[in-house]
This record gives sequence, C-alpha cells and structure tokens, in this order.
Amino acid sequence: MTGGLPLVVTMGEPAGIGGEITLKAWLRRHRLAPPFVVVDDAMRLQRLAASLGLAVPVRSVETTAEAAGIFASALPVLHRPLPVESRPGHPDPVNAPAVVAAIETAVALVQSGAAAGVVTNPIHKKVLYATGFKFPGHTEFLAALAGRGGTPVMMLACPALRVVPVTVHMSLRNAIKALSTEMIVRTTTIVETALRWDFGIAGPRLAVAGLNPHAGEGGEMGGEDVEIVAPAVNALRAHGIDAFGPVPPDTLFSARGRAGYDAAICMYHDQALIPLKTLDFDGGVNVTLGLPLVRTSPDHGTALDIAGSGQASEASLVAALGTAAEIAGRRLTMAA
Amino acid sequence: MTGGLPLVVTMGEPAGIGGEITLKAWLRRHRLAPPFVVVDDAMRLQRLAASLGLAVPVRSVETTAEAAGIFASALPVLHRPLPVESRPGHPDPVNAPAVVAAIETAVALVQSGAAAGVVTNPIHKKVLYATGFKFPGHTEFLAALAGRGGTPVMMLACPALRVVPVTVHMSLRNAIKALSTEMIVRTTTIVETALRWDFGIAGPRLAVAGLNPHAGEGGEMGGEDVEIVAPAVNALRAHGIDAFGPVPPDTLFSARGRAGYDAAICMYHDQALIPLKTLDFDGGVNVTLGLPLVRTSPDHGTALDIAGSGQASEASLVAALGTAAEIAGRRLTMAA
Repeated sequence: MTGGLPLVVTMGEPAGIGGEITLKAWLRRHRLAPPFVVVDDAMRLQRLAASLGLAVPVRSVETTAEAAGIFASALPVLHRPLPVESRPGHPDPVNAPAVVAAIETAVALVQSGAAAGVVTNPIHKKVLYATGFKFPGHTEFLAALAGRGGTPVMMLACPALRVVPVTVHMSLRNAIKALSTEMIVRTTTIVETALRWDFGIAGPRLAVAGLNPHAGEGGEMGGEDVEIVAPAVNALRAHGIDAFGPVPPDTLFSARGRAGYDAAICMYHDQALIPLKTLDFDGGVNVTLGLPLVRTSPDHGTALDIAGSGQASEASLVAALGTAAEIAGRRLTMAA
Repeated sequence: MTGGLPLVVTMGEPAGIGGEITLKAWLRRHRLAPPFVVVDDAMRLQRLAASLGLAVPVRSVETTAEAAGIFASALPVLHRPLPVESRPGHPDPVNAPAVVAAIETAVALVQSGAAAGVVTNPIHKKVLYATGFKFPGHTEFLAALAGRGGTPVMMLACPALRVVPVTVHMSLRNAIKALSTEMIVRTTTIVETALRWDFGIAGPRLAVAGLNPHAGEGGEMGGEDVEIVAPAVNALRAHGIDAFGPVPPDTLFSARGRAGYDAAICMYHDQALIPLKTLDFDGGVNVTLGLPLVRTSPDHGTALDIAGSGQASEASLVAALGTAAEIAGRRLTMAA
C-alpha cells in the first residue's frame, strides 16, 4: 500500500516504554504492512529484548530499502548509539540530543522519499526542555521540521470514535479564555480536508461540541456556546462543510451520538480525551493533521512507572503503524 | 425487600416522555420488585397507552396498599386530573401546578410510611419557573420538602460506573470559580456515607478527579489541582476516608481506571456525565444522596422532541426503580 516504502519509528524517550512496545510491535509484524524501521540504539534494543525475554533479532541497517528487505526476519534499526546507557524510568538529559536527532532523521527520510511516514514513540518533554528544546511538544517540533506555516491539528482516533480538541495543553481556565470562533473554524476545516483525503471519507460529518453543560441551554449556563461556538458552526456551514452543533457534550459520545458524525470537534483536552480513553484505553492513535508528511503516534506517554517491567501494551503503537500506513497509502495513490 | 411497600413514581412533565416510559416500565413488571404506584392523571395514561398500542390496563386507586394489591394485573394510579389535556412536545403552564403537586404527594406518602421511596419522572423547569416554582431543580425541591438542611448530592450510576459532579448546573467558567476544597470534602463525605449505608459497600474507595488536563502536571497546566483538589484529598484521608487523587481526568474512566474505585468525584458536570453517557446512554440512574428519603430518577430529560412517538426507552426508569428498591431495602433492614 506504500509502494514498498517502510514507515520510520522514532526512539522516543529511551527510559520510557518506547523500546519495549517497538519490540512487541515487531512480534506482531504478520499483521502489519508495510514494514517499519526504527531510529534507535541497536545495542540497547538488543539488551532490552533479552531482559524482557522477547525473541526479537535486532539488525543494524544502513538504508530503508535494506530495512524493508530484512523486516520479515529481524527488526531493522538505523543505529544511533546513545551517549549513556538508558535506565528504565530514569531519563538522562545526556541522551536528550539523540532523542531529538532521531525525530529529525525520521522526518528527513520521509522528505527524501526514503520512507512513507513517521510514527513517533513518546518523548519526555521536561528532559528535552532542560537541553534547549524549544517546542511546546512533539507535534509542533514536527511541524517546524516539515516546514509548513500554520498550526498542526491533533486528532485522536480509535475504531469507535475520532476526536479533535480545539484547545489542547493548557489549563481549563485558559482553554475557555483562548477559545475563539476563528480557532474552531480553522481546526474544523483542517479536519474536514483530512477526513476526505487521508481517511477516504467522501462527505465528512463534523459534530461540534458545546463548551458548557447542555451546550449552555440557550445562554442560561454560559454565553460561549451562543457567542463563540454557534457562529463557528454557521460559518462552516456557509462554506459548505457539513458541521452541526453546538451539541450538548454529555450526549455527544454515546453510541447513538457517535453514529451521527465522522469526527467530534471538542472545545478542550478532556472533553476529547475522556470519551476516547473511556471507550478504548489501549488502542487509541494520535494523528497529526495538516502536515505535508504523514505522522502518527501512540496516544499514551512514556509511562516511566512501568518502563522495563514488560507490562507495556503495544496496542496503540500497532494501531498507529496501521493508521500511518493507511494515510500514506491514500496520499501515494492520490499523487500517482 | 421493602416489606411490601410500593415505590411512588411522579408524573413529571406530562408533555414529555414520562407517561410513555412509565407504561413501558409496568410492562416489564415481572423484573421489578417492589410494585410501584404513579401519581398522575389516570385518564391521560389510559389514552396514551391506547395511542401507543401498549397493552396496559390503567386502574385508579386510593391508597398505596390498594396499589400494591393490584400491581400484578394493572398499573395503579393515584388519580390527579390535569386541568388541560397534555399535548406531547408542548408543555402547558396551566398543568404546572399539578406537576409540582405530584412531587409533593409522592414525598408525603414516603414521609407517612405509605411508600418506600420516590422515583421522579423528568420535569421541564422553564414551565415550572413561569408559574412561580423557585428551585434550581428537582433535587433542591425534594430536599426542601424532605426538610433537611444542607446540600443534597447528585450521583449518576450505571453498572460500569458511579460519578458525582461536585459542581453541577452552571457554566464551565463559573464551575471553575465555584470549586472549593470545602465543597469537594463535603460532597465526598456524603458519597462515602451513602456508599456504605445505601449501597452496602464496606470500604468505599473514592477517586477524586483533577480539574485540568493531566491533573495540571504539578501546576504547569493550572494551579487548581495543587491548590484546591489535592488539599481536599489530604483532608479526606486525614479523616479516614479512602480517597485518592487528583487523578488525570482522561485516564480515570478507562476500564483499568474504573477498577480502582467505587465512585469518581468529578469537578464539573460534563467530566461526570460524558463518561457515564458514553458507557451507558440508556441505563443510567440519578440517585439523590444525603436526603432522609429515598429518591432516584432516570438520568435523561423530558425528551420533548420524541414525546408521543413511542420511541422513548424505559431502561433508565426501570434502572431507577431497581436502585430505589435496593436502597429502600437496605434502609429498612438497617432500621429493623
């Protein structure tokens, strides 16, 4: 589906669960297409496989073409040795530049046409900040590397639900302050385009959640739904986008509610993340929309508390690989 | 389980779905114990049954004892004629005093020992306000009738989850402003007591949700989790209550998260209602805790848009009858 091009998986924080779930994902390779290659320290992955009792032969490769050739029999790694050995649960700032470099390498491979898309393992932002990393998160860094203006949009998806938070990593108080009609319109427009082109949905239906309980009951419980959200829905409809709302947030994510839309546009982080993780804690995928390159990631963090224990679930990473392959396949078909 | 005492079901807004779901609940009477009696206009229920094609013989009774005696063969109604015939979907303020009187009658029956508990059908608050009703909602009116000081606490429950919003019917902005350590402590204490006595849980575990994304990440995304929520958890623990938190809201309601507690204490309406309705749209029950009388209700509204169409689901009312019976049974056993 990607013309034989592999996906690139980044190392992520080496003290987190990234290595473990990558090894486990390779063990489920018969379910995956296309192959993937990891940008990581091959020695550490080999040690990790041994310590977790995972039968994964790790092989250092030089190119993505070589990676694709050996993927069936070994986990291909573009070997980037870490300065110090990583200890599960204990991020070391000395390794931070290698974490960042792995992301840069992955993006460069996609940009040069050597890989189909990037799947990122979780990073530990605080450790990166300490060494001069200047981006609010992974997604913004990727957007900068991808070299396109504007704001990338984060979508979380599981088989039962797609959600997009309009405001993301800020306090609830600040999210309410930051919310604007323009922001809702811009985000929803990017989502609509992505659903058409990247997800192959011909006439995407977008549900726009209200901000307040019962979507404000006509202004009786908060003015934002009338003043900010409703005008955004009207503007979107005026531009031919099949959006509706503001929908009372509590009924939006029931089975009946979900049947009515392809993605829910949410006003704040937890309005989107609560229903998604309630429905599917392990299998959610984070998809970055609005970038020129394909990028997905698992929807969990580094899970430092269980790193090294063998308890981490690879379900979200496997789903992220599947989604990246799907999107990359559609883009290649389109370009052909 | 209630010593033969029936439950009392109120009419609710007669233009809503209350009548329909009450008729349908009676059709499932073999699953219900104890019997129930409705305070409503017997003629209108008879007409409604005929128009919906529901084989429900409606019988006017004078006492709850008489109701219990005939429940197996007919729906017993304490007949309170409405001034004007109700039209589905179109509430008439002329009937509002009868809606209020039905609630008063139900409470009086429980207080006099003639009934085991009250199950209320949904009301349409705007219509009641127009005729001088002065309470923010059903629950506050019941609390006033029950004659006990303090704030009643609303719990929403389905088989998979119990949630309690600390702030309820206010805008999200005002909920953040209103939230206090004292309010969280008071609410959680009432919930803990109710879980022990009304739900028969010996050592209730209470999860206290954070307010902000990731529970504020140690103050980096909003100060409330550190300044307001954490001190409440500490105070509760100091009083021997098995509370923990602030828990990141998005992971709290996953299957794994839910396994760790008996009820989740939520900071705002939708933080509680989104996961509940995502998991179980039809079967949720609203339980009023902290009142001297047993009161439950379905967790939906009057649904004026589908009233009269026969589409309404009785699942939530049936669950509300079951929960009221359980609580009433425990209180009677305790008193015996």
